[in-house]
Amino acid sequence: MAKQKRPPRPKAEPPRGFRDHFGSEVAERSAMLDAVAGVYHLNGFEALESPAVETVEALGSFLPDVDRPNDGVFAWQVDEDGDWLALRYDLTAPLARVFAQHRNELPAPYRRFAIGPVWRNEKPGPGRFRQFYQCDADTVGSPSIAADAEICMVLSDALEAVGIPRGDYVIRLNNRKVLNGVLDVAGLSGEAARERGIVLRSIDKLDRLGPESVRSLLGEGRTDESGDFAEGAGLADSQAGTVMEFIEARRGDNAATLERLSEIIGDNATGKAGVAELRGMAELMEAGGYGPDRVVIDPSVVRGLGYYTGPVYEADLTFEIRDEKGRPQQFGSVAGGGRYDDLVKRFTGQEVPATGISIGVDRLLAALRAKGRSSGESAGPVVVTVMDRDRMGAYQAMASTLRKAGIRAEVYLGNPRNFGNQLKYADRRRSPVAIIQGSNEVARGVVQVKDLALGARIAEGASLKEWRDQPAQFECPIGDLVSRVREILDR
Amino acid sequence: MAKQKRPPRPKAEPPRGFRDHFGSEVAERSAMLDAVAGVYHLNGFEALESPAVETVEALGSFLPDVDRPNDGVFAWQVDEDGDWLALRYDLTAPLARVFAQHRNELPAPYRRFAIGPVWRNEKPGPGRFRQFYQCDADTVGSPSIAADAEICMVLSDALEAVGIPRGDYVIRLNNRKVLNGVLDVAGLSGEAARERGIVLRSIDKLDRLGPESVRSLLGEGRTDESGDFAEGAGLADSQAGTVMEFIEARRGDNAATLERLSEIIGDNATGKAGVAELRGMAELMEAGGYGPDRVVIDPSVVRGLGYYTGPVYEADLTFEIRDEKGRPQQFGSVAGGGRYDDLVKRFTGQEVPATGISIGVDRLLAALRAKGRSSGESAGPVVVTVMDRDRMGAYQAMASTLRKAGIRAEVYLGNPRNFGNQLKYADRRRSPVAIIQGSNEVARGVVQVKDLALGARIAEGASLKEWRDQPAQFECPIGDLVSRVREILDR
Repeated sequence: MAKQKRPPRPKAEPPRGFRDHFGSEVAERSAMLDAVAGVYHLNGFEALESPAVETVEALGSFLPDVDRPNDGVFAWQVDEDGDWLALRYDLTAPLARVFAQHRNELPAPYRRFAIGPVWRNEKPGPGRFRQFYQCDADTVGSPSIAADAEICMVLSDALEAVGIPRGDYVIRLNNRKVLNGVLDVAGLSGEAARERGIVLRSIDKLDRLGPESVRSLLGEGRTDESGDFAEGAGLADSQAGTVMEFIEARRGDNAATLERLSEIIGDNATGKAGVAELRGMAELMEAGGYGPDRVVIDPSVVRGLGYYTGPVYEADLTFEIRDEKGRPQQFGSVAGGGRYDDLVKRFTGQEVPATGISIGVDRLLAALRAKGRSSGESAGPVVVTVMDRDRMGAYQAMASTLRKAGIRAEVYLGNPRNFGNQLKYADRRRSPVAIIQGSNEVARGVVQVKDLALGARIAEGASLKEWRDQPAQFECPIGDLVSRVREILDR
Repeated sequence: MAKQKRPPRPKAEPPRGFRDHFGSEVAERSAMLDAVAGVYHLNGFEALESPAVETVEALGSFLPDVDRPNDGVFAWQVDEDGDWLALRYDLTAPLARVFAQHRNELPAPYRRFAIGPVWRNEKPGPGRFRQFYQCDADTVGSPSIAADAEICMVLSDALEAVGIPRGDYVIRLNNRKVLNGVLDVAGLSGEAARERGIVLRSIDKLDRLGPESVRSLLGEGRTDESGDFAEGAGLADSQAGTVMEFIEARRGDNAATLERLSEIIGDNATGKAGVAELRGMAELMEAGGYGPDRVVIDPSVVRGLGYYTGPVYEADLTFEIRDEKGRPQQFGSVAGGGRYDDLVKRFTGQEVPATGISIGVDRLLAALRAKGRSSGESAGPVVVTVMDRDRMGAYQAMASTLRKAGIRAEVYLGNPRNFGNQLKYADRRRSPVAIIQGSNEVARGVVQVKDLALGARIAEGASLKEWRDQPAQFECPIGDLVSRVREILDR
């Protein structure tokens, strides 16, 4: 018998496209989510936490890529003849399932918010992960555009609550009915579902590819830089022209944009209904103080998802940041949503009007970091070092005293033999202060307090005066521990 | 060609064993997790959020049931020759992977906390779910029992922080080395892994089955109430007797328990080391003020998991609650943990000492609810009703005014035609106040304020005087809206 090989050691890494978040990064995101949840809640939205796992049947397939509807989801069969389960790919599909299930007990309309990770089985790439957070607010059961306007206003408040000041973002508003009217006008009937789908996804690429490429995609198709050919919608020149007029219909103010849209859609009933909805939403929002400095009508926004039926909206950050080579970059979209009236119907057969928003948490966090509004770093705990391992109880008592005063503190738990290692540890922990007490200090009832933050500042070039006035290490009676540590932390 | 049937409608329900959480239930858990995270952080632990998904290879199999090591996990293959991925079944296995991966950058020792859902592919049952929260704190890289003692003290602080007062819980402490010593003494060598495993899991059932059943499981086996036979460890009477002596070794105080354990293990080196560790931990904790009112040595605690190597501990709630039939029930264990020194070794070949705790969030929350310390219910928003749908902007302005004063408020977004439905909606929302403004009120610059909470109290039998002094509905100038609503909310 051949000698069995020992199994190889497992690789210590997450699956491709997944990542870990550490320390203050977690705290930072959590603070941001709390701020958004606070705005949602204040506006009457109720929290909902559905499970990460749904049946494939309940989840359905609403991911944008209609050519491969079953792709993009992590799914598995529980056992040989068990259910097919899947990780949720967004928070909207589970909402539809929950509302259909509990529609008799839930208030109608039902305003709900949900925050949590979603999963996509997509090819990972730079900045593209297979697990990421979403933070959604939706209103189910109201056909009124007041519900859509409210979602946009809540989104605006949420962005300001996390630290994006007015002027650094804009919510762009459009309406699918206008687009559908334009396609009717262009002679592309509702039956031409495939072509309409390509038109939708082509317009959605406007920000990234520019108008010329979109024009190609509306017609014969387009060969990209890598030489790959993307088939077009096959529209005739006049048809494509009408669509281009539509997406370029934004004017200097909402009134002018609405007028331009009215011209394009002419007498088309669907298109006129869409324009009326846009006008109504803009009026409601202006009445609420959400004017064009926060929300503008922009016909180039269509949102890729096929299920939107009326108003669609998108929040863009308007400030520039520089990439590592100093080139200006725009952050673009950090949130998007719209009205979808068919999702609950899958379960109940009855159409239920719904509208909602999804905030891309990780992009928003990256934007805040790029603006320097979130450092991503925070100070570590005070470290009580260990000079004498028989006195662990006394060291723990010191840490405990500091904690009772609300100061984050810990005792060094590594091998205490090498004191230099203890200070290196405190450094790696980004500790502001180290406490030292050997037998000499015990005998005199004192401790040594070492200001590690000052040490770091000195290394970065503090003045000699600062160095002299604030000694980086001093001795104090054990009873003064809390007040002297606080002095350092308050500096 | 046969006529294609329309596909049946999907069932609107979560997969078996999964559930949804609504409204204040979510807020309540989130507040509890924040309180625990606050204690962990104050003690120097750093947040870590690893993904829900790991490779099967990295995750390994450490679930308690050694007979079916691959069961209990949701796993799938990404594509035909892709990786096998799985949902994490606890937060410890991912920690081992993260520490192995980042050991050169992480501080050593590394104190980390993690909060999040885990998944088990187990048969669901009453109170048994396939997704549940854990809330862990671990210290990796310290062999010192000071690290174990710290974990127990942090656990104690965390329980008190969420609202379990001292006296309503106890942390029971034991040490695997003592058990291993006892098994040596009983003549069950370390080679008898299968028998040792059965002994471990049998002792773990003591609380549930009682000593007689455990005694049977140590010997020939046991037939349960349903007639199923569970094979025993096959210990001889004298061996089983020694094990029973061990698990019943708890005495009136820690000193007496330690003495009794010393008698049982005699000169066995492993057992003596275990007793010394127990003594050392008890001393450290007593020095920190964590005496027997919070932590006691109890040899009947072993924790089922095979990977523990030293101290093990468990937090039990000691108060009684009544079930729906009025029968007294004990909540039992809400947290458990211990020292495990081999988990990182799988990746690196080097043994890394580690110790930690996992809090069962859902059980703890259920306990708080049973004690009436958490209501699970909270008031809804103020509802601004809609008397005239052309005045939505004005109604939204009222809601906005209330929100700016920090009062949760919303405008009714359903069909406003039936006013009774609006009040039913407010009722379902548990709204404390409804605001009403029709054309009559507009003309006079006033609003009607309806105290819905009072309405509910009157229905529950408020006095006639209360009813007269606090009219359930009154009129006030629009400018007084905030102050008059606040009056009601403050009652």
